[in-house]
Amino acid sequence: MNASAQIGVTGLAVMGRNLARNFARNGYTVAVHNRTYARTQELVDQFGEEGTFVPAASAEEFVAALERPRCLMVMVKAGAPTDAVIEEFAELAEPGDVIIDGGNAHFEDTRRREAALRERGIHFVGTGVSGGEEGALLGPSIMPGGSAESYASLGPMLERIAARAPDGSPCTTHVGPDGAGHFVKMVHNGIEYADMQLIAEAYDLLRRAAGFSPEEIARIFRSWNQGRLDSYLIEITAEVLTHKDADTGKPFVDIVADRAEQKGTGRWTVQTALGLGLPVPGIAEAVFARSLSGHTELRSAAASLPGPGDGEARSGAMSPEEAARFADQVEQSLYASKVISYAQGWDMIRAGSEEYDWDIDLSSVAAIWRAGCIIRAAFLDRIRSAFAGNPGLPTLLADPEFARELGEAQDGWRATVTAAVRHGVPAPGMSGALAYYDGLRADRLPAALTQGQRDYFGAHTYERTDREGTFHTLWAGDRNEVRPD
Amino acid sequence: MNASAQIGVTGLAVMGRNLARNFARNGYTVAVHNRTYARTQELVDQFGEEGTFVPAASAEEFVAALERPRCLMVMVKAGAPTDAVIEEFAELAEPGDVIIDGGNAHFEDTRRREAALRERGIHFVGTGVSGGEEGALLGPSIMPGGSAESYASLGPMLERIAARAPDGSPCTTHVGPDGAGHFVKMVHNGIEYADMQLIAEAYDLLRRAAGFSPEEIARIFRSWNQGRLDSYLIEITAEVLTHKDADTGKPFVDIVADRAEQKGTGRWTVQTALGLGLPVPGIAEAVFARSLSGHTELRSAAASLPGPGDGEARSGAMSPEEAARFADQVEQSLYASKVISYAQGWDMIRAGSEEYDWDIDLSSVAAIWRAGCIIRAAFLDRIRSAFAGNPGLPTLLADPEFARELGEAQDGWRATVTAAVRHGVPAPGMSGALAYYDGLRADRLPAALTQGQRDYFGAHTYERTDREGTFHTLWAGDRNEVRPD
Repeated sequence: MNASAQIGVTGLAVMGRNLARNFARNGYTVAVHNRTYARTQELVDQFGEEGTFVPAASAEEFVAALERPRCLMVMVKAGAPTDAVIEEFAELAEPGDVIIDGGNAHFEDTRRREAALRERGIHFVGTGVSGGEEGALLGPSIMPGGSAESYASLGPMLERIAARAPDGSPCTTHVGPDGAGHFVKMVHNGIEYADMQLIAEAYDLLRRAAGFSPEEIARIFRSWNQGRLDSYLIEITAEVLTHKDADTGKPFVDIVADRAEQKGTGRWTVQTALGLGLPVPGIAEAVFARSLSGHTELRSAAASLPGPGDGEARSGAMSPEEAARFADQVEQSLYASKVISYAQGWDMIRAGSEEYDWDIDLSSVAAIWRAGCIIRAAFLDRIRSAFAGNPGLPTLLADPEFARELGEAQDGWRATVTAAVRHGVPAPGMSGALAYYDGLRADRLPAALTQGQRDYFGAHTYERTDREGTFHTLWAGDRNEVRPD
Repeated sequence: MNASAQIGVTGLAVMGRNLARNFARNGYTVAVHNRTYARTQELVDQFGEEGTFVPAASAEEFVAALERPRCLMVMVKAGAPTDAVIEEFAELAEPGDVIIDGGNAHFEDTRRREAALRERGIHFVGTGVSGGEEGALLGPSIMPGGSAESYASLGPMLERIAARAPDGSPCTTHVGPDGAGHFVKMVHNGIEYADMQLIAEAYDLLRRAAGFSPEEIARIFRSWNQGRLDSYLIEITAEVLTHKDADTGKPFVDIVADRAEQKGTGRWTVQTALGLGLPVPGIAEAVFARSLSGHTELRSAAASLPGPGDGEARSGAMSPEEAARFADQVEQSLYASKVISYAQGWDMIRAGSEEYDWDIDLSSVAAIWRAGCIIRAAFLDRIRSAFAGNPGLPTLLADPEFARELGEAQDGWRATVTAAVRHGVPAPGMSGALAYYDGLRADRLPAALTQGQRDYFGAHTYERTDREGTFHTLWAGDRNEVRPD
């Protein structure tokens, strides 16, 4: 076989298949390979006309079909299968070749794999790919890590198949070395969890506190989608809420079981943030809300716990004017809470970048999320511009424009959280975001009391506001203050 | 040297020293050993009259001083030092001997060590010890894991030195195999974080929303300590709030830097809960609140963000009657939120017990926390009795008495969270607990919308409320529903 393919894709489930087609549709010759050849054959049979595919029946054939340096993309299940497939191809590869893992690997695994392959002269690129099946085919957001050298051969191809931001630039960039790409993809998914949870809370409040129907709520979401909340997730929320179940004629959202599932990247984000010592309650509350929803045994045991007793709690008690005003407040709460969780996400990217020496450009991360990925949104361009204008911005909340918006939104935000509390509608994301906002801006936090307690029961010492040093009070003795050595 | 000691303690920093003294004061002959002999000598010089110590200058001497089967307690820093010391003594030990790690090891490390030593016929017991320095000396709460056989030799000694519950029973029990003891200790510490955070929020609200002084708040805490909140942490909070800084004459709490530190067990608890798929927002928000307080760069960047603009926000705006009523509401909020975080803690112990086949008696965990440990409280006896009366209780919230109390507390709880929102005082613990309560008791959660979105963008499928199976809607096509194979 001639080495004629610029890129190879192995693992032809829906994501791999669509990425292969995307490369082919962009003029690349694409070697395709799958554990079972039938699937390879099927791809060529069904989509062969879209471009030039080189179907390979074996791993050896697949590798032989690739031009040097070989760029070989692995699209298999994260975990042990990925290790096995990487090892299989690493043995066939030569120094200088590039093996790309486009699955949702944990960035620590990617770091480990990159280091191991680097020893053998092979470039390993862990890359985030977001946008689902459709994105993979029509243009995803792509977040490659790995060496700068690997990006020299791989980057131009990724830039061709990636989504384009409104300004025409491709939604991919060299995020940083080794695991930087998968780290950033993980944070993307964590933010996605937070976004989805906040949208769910907005829906729940509009439905149960204001009494709107799913169809009315869809209209509200569509109107929000014309403004600063303009985003893919808001758009599809309206679609889901409009949809009627064909069998029952009921709103689709009412026949879906209310147990949200998760695949692990949200959980990883929170676990990683805890390790980095960074508060990400927005993402954590979203992960917890999903796991709570799935604990049917806990939920049924708690189902008879009483809710707020007052008459206001019943839905429909708002007048149309009140309900309309409430919808505006919910928009403010949703927007402000969203800004908070994005701020936490960027804090985390900065912290990861510092921890692992990745030197990630915070602005470019926002740039490549403007299109293609699940959290694509008009407002990402404003995040891009905030960090582009001030790369040292310590938090998104310190950006003057976002700070102004939060200040303006806070009345509606506080009113929404208050309504949730009064009506007994759970809004952990919105209330957690507000508590984070109030915590971060506080002059003094009661953490001083916490430190006092820790010193009392564990002699953990404390610092003072008025001078340097570490101090301990002899609580069980004369309560004098001492300076432990 | 004669083998005359029933127990040995190596590592004579404050915790190890006090445990050794505790054993000696209870009539045991205690072999003592430290890396530097001076510390061993110091212990015998200072406290030799308290009982019978056998100072050992070397590891060999230490081991030789112990009766068979040897019970040898390691009290060194968690992590690599523990591994080194355990290995040192494992080489000197014989089959049937018991090596005890009384530090705050991660339960996964304990599982690993236990399995490795079991291969060599040595019993390894990872044990939680709570109560701080004073507890170690006068009676801690002790949570040993390891084999039942090890407890046969070790247990009676632990029962002698442990704290006594009000009913006279010792605050220790064989928690379960391998890492069960350290797991339960980890959850204890997670609950402790939540407790301390809730107390900090109560204080902050009483101070900033109601305008009480630290001394007035100390009085309020003392009165709470007469009721259902009766606990060590409430008691010492009053002590800390009463204390005046000698240098400045100011309330002590006002001169302590408001950056709370942490040692890792809280973070482990949340990371572990995430792995178990269990929602523990009460503990997570406490960990996040501590880490937020320490991020001075974020805090100073966000310091100028606006708070609520209305006049009510200023402290002191409440009349004395309003403030007194508010204090009652805060008590209800604190109590209800505390019940929620204990419920989450016990959920986690159950989940860990199931995951690792530990068969932990949920009632006995509450029993051994009634005295000695940091979270000791009158209300732990009620948790003990709830699980003793109904070992299959799916959640503490389903216990009729706790359910009734939560129902009665909810008006005050909701009023407190609302006040926090209105005054701009961060109360992530209380508001998160309330959202958990409202989430768990909800008939329908907006998780159904989340599942609809996931199916829309990722074909992740969903279940239906009205029949079995897994479904997918062809969102990009005719929107018919299909059943993926």
